[in-house]
Amino acid sequence: MSGSVFGKNIKMSTWGESHGKALGVVVDGFPAGMELDISDIQKFLDRRKPGTSPATTPRKEDDAVDILSGVFEGKTTGTPISLIVKNTSQRSQDYSEIAQYYRPGHADFGFDEKYGFRDYRGGGRSSGRETIGRVAAGALCSKLLQEMGIEVFAFTRAIGDVEINDANFDRESILKTATAMPDPEADKRAMDLINKCKMEQDSVGGIIECHIKGLPAGIGETVFDKLDAVISHAVMSIGAVKAVEIGDGTKVSSYRGSENNDPFEIVEGDICKKTNHSGGILGGMSDGSEIIVRAYVKPTPSISKTQTTINKSGENIEINIHGRHDPVVVPRAVVVVESMCAFSVLDLMISNMSSRTDYIKAFYAK
Amino acid sequence: MSGSVFGKNIKMSTWGESHGKALGVVVDGFPAGMELDISDIQKFLDRRKPGTSPATTPRKEDDAVDILSGVFEGKTTGTPISLIVKNTSQRSQDYSEIAQYYRPGHADFGFDEKYGFRDYRGGGRSSGRETIGRVAAGALCSKLLQEMGIEVFAFTRAIGDVEINDANFDRESILKTATAMPDPEADKRAMDLINKCKMEQDSVGGIIECHIKGLPAGIGETVFDKLDAVISHAVMSIGAVKAVEIGDGTKVSSYRGSENNDPFEIVEGDICKKTNHSGGILGGMSDGSEIIVRAYVKPTPSISKTQTTINKSGENIEINIHGRHDPVVVPRAVVVVESMCAFSVLDLMISNMSSRTDYIKAFYAK
Amino acid sequence: MSGSVFGKNIKMSTWGESHGKALGVVVDGFPAGMELDISDIQKFLDRRKPGTSPATTPRKEDDAVDILSGVFEGKTTGTPISLIVKNTSQRSQDYSEIAQYYRPGHADFGFDEKYGFRDYRGGGRSSGRETIGRVAAGALCSKLLQEMGIEVFAFTRAIGDVEINDANFDRESILKTATAMPDPEADKRAMDLINKCKMEQDSVGGIIECHIKGLPAGIGETVFDKLDAVISHAVMSIGAVKAVEIGDGTKVSSYRGSENNDPFEIVEGDICKKTNHSGGILGGMSDGSEIIVRAYVKPTPSISKTQTTINKSGENIEINIHGRHDPVVVPRAVVVVESMCAFSVLDLMISNMSSRTDYIKAFYAK
Amino acid sequence: MSGSVFGKNIKMSTWGESHGKALGVVVDGFPAGMELDISDIQKFLDRRKPGTSPATTPRKEDDAVDILSGVFEGKTTGTPISLIVKNTSQRSQDYSEIAQYYRPGHADFGFDEKYGFRDYRGGGRSSGRETIGRVAAGALCSKLLQEMGIEVFAFTRAIGDVEINDANFDRESILKTATAMPDPEADKRAMDLINKCKMEQDSVGGIIECHIKGLPAGIGETVFDKLDAVISHAVMSIGAVKAVEIGDGTKVSSYRGSENNDPFEIVEGDICKKTNHSGGILGGMSDGSEIIVRAYVKPTPSISKTQTTINKSGENIEINIHGRHDPVVVPRAVVVVESMCAFSVLDLMISNMSSRTDYIKAFYAK
Repeated sequence: MSGSVFGKNIKMSTWGESHGKALGVVVDGFPAGMELDISDIQKFLDRRKPGTSPATTPRKEDDAVDILSGVFEGKTTGTPISLIVKNTSQRSQDYSEIAQYYRPGHADFGFDEKYGFRDYRGGGRSSGRETIGRVAAGALCSKLLQEMGIEVFAFTRAIGDVEINDANFDRESILKTATAMPDPEADKRAMDLINKCKMEQDSVGGIIECHIKGLPAGIGETVFDKLDAVISHAVMSIGAVKAVEIGDGTKVSSYRGSENNDPFEIVEGDICKKTNHSGGILGGMSDGSEIIVRAYVKPTPSISKTQTTINKSGENIEINIHGRHDPVVVPRAVVVVESMCAFSVLDLMISNMSSRTDYIKAFYAK
Repeated sequence: MSGSVFGKNIKMSTWGESHGKALGVVVDGFPAGMELDISDIQKFLDRRKPGTSPATTPRKEDDAVDILSGVFEGKTTGTPISLIVKNTSQRSQDYSEIAQYYRPGHADFGFDEKYGFRDYRGGGRSSGRETIGRVAAGALCSKLLQEMGIEVFAFTRAIGDVEINDANFDRESILKTATAMPDPEADKRAMDLINKCKMEQDSVGGIIECHIKGLPAGIGETVFDKLDAVISHAVMSIGAVKAVEIGDGTKVSSYRGSENNDPFEIVEGDICKKTNHSGGILGGMSDGSEIIVRAYVKPTPSISKTQTTINKSGENIEINIHGRHDPVVVPRAVVVVESMCAFSVLDLMISNMSSRTDYIKAFYAK
Repeated sequence: MSGSVFGKNIKMSTWGESHGKALGVVVDGFPAGMELDISDIQKFLDRRKPGTSPATTPRKEDDAVDILSGVFEGKTTGTPISLIVKNTSQRSQDYSEIAQYYRPGHADFGFDEKYGFRDYRGGGRSSGRETIGRVAAGALCSKLLQEMGIEVFAFTRAIGDVEINDANFDRESILKTATAMPDPEADKRAMDLINKCKMEQDSVGGIIECHIKGLPAGIGETVFDKLDAVISHAVMSIGAVKAVEIGDGTKVSSYRGSENNDPFEIVEGDICKKTNHSGGILGGMSDGSEIIVRAYVKPTPSISKTQTTINKSGENIEINIHGRHDPVVVPRAVVVVESMCAFSVLDLMISNMSSRTDYIKAFYAK
Repeated sequence: MSGSVFGKNIKMSTWGESHGKALGVVVDGFPAGMELDISDIQKFLDRRKPGTSPATTPRKEDDAVDILSGVFEGKTTGTPISLIVKNTSQRSQDYSEIAQYYRPGHADFGFDEKYGFRDYRGGGRSSGRETIGRVAAGALCSKLLQEMGIEVFAFTRAIGDVEINDANFDRESILKTATAMPDPEADKRAMDLINKCKMEQDSVGGIIECHIKGLPAGIGETVFDKLDAVISHAVMSIGAVKAVEIGDGTKVSSYRGSENNDPFEIVEGDICKKTNHSGGILGGMSDGSEIIVRAYVKPTPSISKTQTTINKSGENIEINIHGRHDPVVVPRAVVVVESMCAFSVLDLMISNMSSRTDYIKAFYAK
């Protein structure tokens, strides 16, 4: 069963393995007429590229994207946009050992159970490199959203127990700090924690938060394809994410109704909400406030510390996983969360365009 | 855009409003040959029926289901199963007031923005009654899973700050306590809290947990339709849910890798995991351990306390919402979470049947 | 696998068997705000109702439709529209004989092979009554199209070898003649043929043609979801249809390019085509001319004449099928073809609304 | 709206334009474990390659395919298979003229209406080269079907009014004759016709027929996703196809029921049909007989003869289309029809695997 295609109006079909010839995505249904330069995509990919900061693996991956179709004379044509990134720097290391056992915290065992065998080189299809296609597709959607005044931006809220101080929030810092934290002070403490983990041959998790600003009210379908449901699907499908929440999220379980309800109010003629516990979503539809999504990311399962596991012969063994792994995937995953949110929002905005017969009539009356 | 159809191999198409003539679901793609008695579905619906305990609204809703198609001589036929519940006891109260304003915490505003108007009687399509179709569909899936030795069961983990004690876990109690808690002692304390909320004309949230036992490894597609991603979509699409987590969920963000990784081990010849931080899912596929899902539910937004909001004329007003509302929706939503999980798991188990050419060949060689 | 759900933006989910309690459809994604009276649907269903003319079975089926959801204060709400027709006049005849053998030209054998057993009463899910849901859904779409100046109308082109004379074409006659022919003279000859078939305990096939007028150019997606491809899917999925063609259809195989190409021309400032061999579709998109679709319908397989076949015990036997069957299904199937075309066109018109970024920007700039 | 993705269990996502950098397809959901060599795909692509016979354009296109993902150690992995063909020999001719007018019989006008502009080089996305992705995907499916004893093969039935003589049917000839006719004698006459058309600067249409042998009964879903409906969608979505029929197709409209019904019979213990007017499909499901599909193909719209049309300035003009065009597309389209049928059949065979609860139980009991 197909499981690498996502979206309803726009479909992204991602492909590629960590150590195959290339990875990429076909984006079908992206509307015609948007100016698109390769740099619009490359700058997104550069944010997930490793080797750019001490917070990530020292592996070098160029991840240069090429546009193979769907763009003509600098504009999207409405037909499928095929984007490709060649695998150039994958080391031809020896995988004969890793092929024989199941790494804890990895998909190895599931792959063998499901498919009978697996591409064991660098995680194969379950590698973090799988997200290249998502980010390339997200870059397109983000650009169009931005042209409509809708901003989608994600950042690192926490690494381990080091959390940002919202009072220090500085959006510009997201692209500057090694951790993608919008708080340079927290970034420093987080880097200390990361370095500690590296020294201990261990890894650590964290929290990624995504905001969507400027989204009109009414986006999201009212039952199964609620805005929060589609975003949860999109974000939970990212490799290391183990929890997703909207607005006050898990905390609402201990709230009273009088505390959680956000009163509507008119401010200078505009419909507003006094608070935003809802994270901008009510009944599955955007409510006009800022959308707030949080993804909880597990620590990188690949650690150098000695671990126990089993091999394919059914023996209990001890292993040491070598290689250059990220001590924390959070900083590089920020743009992946942002991309999946941008894609989901644009897809549902298109769905919303046919919600009323009046809209359809007006469109075709032109 | 269609948003009331869910599933890939099996599709449930739910319909109906709180105060319309009826509500129901069409389940298309459910396989042929399962014995199905109307009581198999009714007992699920009875679990979400109000008026059965002091924890819920005193409203009476019979919610008697009828099977209109897809079952012949006591067995499913493989063709669409149409299930219907007539609305019999909806009070013909006066909605002229509620039609004029936007209730805080409700979908009213979104509906008007999206569709231009709304069925304002009892929440319309965004009523909790919308889940009747989900539960009826889930009952079918649960039955088939059970016949295969796979148990899906949900329960109330917490109401407000009253949480069950896992040491007292008693599965039998789920169907006996008013709160659907598997811990009679916690149930008592939760009831005290609920009664307090009622007296204060307020409401409270809680946590629902769902376990899936006996699921083989390898279920879930490896990229977008990961088991956890599909479950998140399914569960987050339930009205009041604001967060979803798998296994240790939000906690993993502060774990170290060495702490979070579950070591595989061979125990009496079987492949096991020493721990289950992963909640039974690795790389989007079941790993053979128990699946653990948690949904965080917000407090009922309909409270009798005075609140401020706006009306359709754009005025700031004070409101008092009357009616018989649940002080907490958690106990009745337990079976909804269970149903959505059962549906998702069965759908992905079917997807998995074509994961290998050998499976297809073996099937058609017979 | 689900196979009773059709459509992308709008989904119709049909259900019900010939002799079950009821049949119906859930239409999800139909836009909000269209005025809808039950008579808008009933008049469509009445066109497929039997017993209304000598051309059809004398069976009486009232086929009174009820709207169970999705309409509030006389207008569609944007949420699922559930439509139901109760089975009231199905005879409780003895099906014990028919249950034992496979009728030639019917789905009986396929059902048993696929599902292991079948609802043998009146064809079960493969009965012509299955189309009730399609027609009810089509009625909604037709109404909206008509409000936009797009007319979809089908008629009987031929019954057996009796074909209409296009020179006599009178659209009003479609709803007046027993055969749904737009040519009263041909209707008479066709009725003679039908009566002859009845006397010979035999049946006959025919051709249904559907026109779509007023459709703007550019509707249809350019590769797999071409306008003609989706219409072919929709129309070929109707029980007795064995061929579908667009415009000059099968004839183009012997044309020269210079003969088949329709020259564009400017007539009074409008873009027109000198001819319409293409049937209004080029490259999968509407070209601004009238859309012309033809469906070739096989003779009713249920005939009273003695036939040979096999029974479930694997014996060669002779059978005589009793019951009141249509000598030709074409007149009643006209509205089914019309409905499936209307549904497909509206669905693709919605798809087209997001074909350009400019459209999306203009929509959200309002 | 996405329109370049096809399939339910397996999805092919094709991309690329005639004169872009490359064309290709991502096949998602193809099962794991099939041995796949690049030659398995190349030999299919070579059948649609031009310049190989006097029946086709003298343009040279190498169309060398590369496998970028989804195959490891010579076997499909179950993850997306990305196939690419680089555009190497596209002439950088001057398209400034063609960009200004709408070619009769082409999609140019529709493209401009839909998207606001178009890639006018060689037809862009509506080029016949678009089918490269389909054929590459079909090659995979054909191989798996063949390993299961199911043969899918298409051939040219007619070119213009030159039709094969079924008495001369020689399957081996399909791959040998320039026209892909299984009748060398008809091939000669067809070549004479083709040469005549070339001399007259004209083109001609034809008929492609596809047979599917060895398909078990019961394949196809019973309402909208009937085997014939899905095949019709698949085949009608091929550029120049204007009609699709199953079995006796259009002819059944003038048959009597007693003539059209295929009697079942037991022959040496096997369930057979005495005749096969149905073309192997009853009630949308395979009936155990050979499946017979016919596609009617229009003459190539690109002809050198002078034609009239309009330009983008709204003027009536005369044009002469230059370039090396196929005088008939039928011979090269044979493998496209075969590919689309193979894909559709395999997809529906997978759907059928979950038609009974017993199948699911047996699968998971192993």
